[in-house]
Amino acid sequence: MADNLEPLERLTDMFRRLDGVGKKSAARYAFCVLNFTEEEAAEFARAIIAAKTEIHRCAVCQNITTDKLCSVCASEARDHGTVCVVEDPRAVLAIEKTRQYGGVYHVLHGTISPMRGITPDKLTIRELLARIAPTNGGPGEEPTDESTPAEDTGSPIREVILATNPTVEGEATAMYIAKLLTPLGVKVTRIANGVPVGGDLEYADAVTLRRAMEGRYSIL
Amino acid sequence: MADNLEPLERLTDMFRRLDGVGKKSAARYAFCVLNFTEEEAAEFARAIIAAKTEIHRCAVCQNITTDKLCSVCASEARDHGTVCVVEDPRAVLAIEKTRQYGGVYHVLHGTISPMRGITPDKLTIRELLARIAPTNGGPGEEPTDESTPAEDTGSPIREVILATNPTVEGEATAMYIAKLLTPLGVKVTRIANGVPVGGDLEYADAVTLRRAMEGRYSIL
Repeated sequence: MADNLEPLERLTDMFRRLDGVGKKSAARYAFCVLNFTEEEAAEFARAIIAAKTEIHRCAVCQNITTDKLCSVCASEARDHGTVCVVEDPRAVLAIEKTRQYGGVYHVLHGTISPMRGITPDKLTIRELLARIAPTNGGPGEEPTDESTPAEDTGSPIREVILATNPTVEGEATAMYIAKLLTPLGVKVTRIANGVPVGGDLEYADAVTLRRAMEGRYSIL
Repeated sequence: MADNLEPLERLTDMFRRLDGVGKKSAARYAFCVLNFTEEEAAEFARAIIAAKTEIHRCAVCQNITTDKLCSVCASEARDHGTVCVVEDPRAVLAIEKTRQYGGVYHVLHGTISPMRGITPDKLTIRELLARIAPTNGGPGEEPTDESTPAEDTGSPIREVILATNPTVEGEATAMYIAKLLTPLGVKVTRIANGVPVGGDLEYADAVTLRRAMEGRYSIL
């Protein structure tokens, strides 16, 4: 009954690795590729390789970029004293669309999820801590001179807005980061529950996101 | 605001060319690829090229295969006198799953759709006619000896089952082919309306498809 369609099956398997793609959809996509012209198929293959090789993480905020720094981190016009922590690059795009936020970002690339094996060290929390306390590396470096806060150490960060998704994992991740940052003397806030609980930042409309940014509150 | 993420946008555009993939889904898939390992991305790219270059159409039934003939056409156990005409390779897979059909297939690779510019010559109707009337090429080749039907001309096809989808375009295509084939003396049947009207063969369950095959009726 079954033909040797191993190349098609292999392609279907690749499509199934994409988020939210089931068996039927993956097969449909694979058949679509068969109907592509040779040139289109080659273009598709090149696009995958190019996206993977040309796009990497911003050296500062870990958002995706083709340059060393992303456009937000490289901008003089942004307030580098306010850092908005998000789960993924799509959340950055969603917040940028509100045109209300003038600070910078930090992209975690996920949420803490012990059940899926995502421990805090798999996220970019280490890089976030390094941004807030750049000298926080050696042991016993207790700040003795209390009159020289962050500015002197090269870290002008005054506030960290935790804008992880309002899901169980997003809330837990926000709480985890708040507990790490609060002792460092930085103000830690959480976006307000204007964002519909249980949803995803990517699908929130600009007004809801704007309200959530305006209504942020102290987390600890 | 917008970073130079042209490679990501190009990949998103490629995903949007797949059937039923919208803007948000395409972006989600592109981000998934960014989270692939280098090796996975390379594998995905290779799978696309391999599927496109290694899979072609069966010389007889036009179904997709990696060999010269598909497994059904190459099989001695199948009844080569019964041809089931379907829109696409997925319909072949769906019918094979019923394990009730012993004949062979003919894959049209689409339906007649003047609005989308798909005229009969864009489908494999020419190849279907060649299977039924192989000598039907020269002019004035009127069969004078009525006692020697198809078998002598090398075409043992007794029946053509039209199993295009029960949609407006599928019905129209079936009617078009029936009108072409009936004058050639071949029995032309249509699968019964056990298949839910307005649906797609791919999503029909095996029992429904089996009933539809059993309940086929003369179309003209």
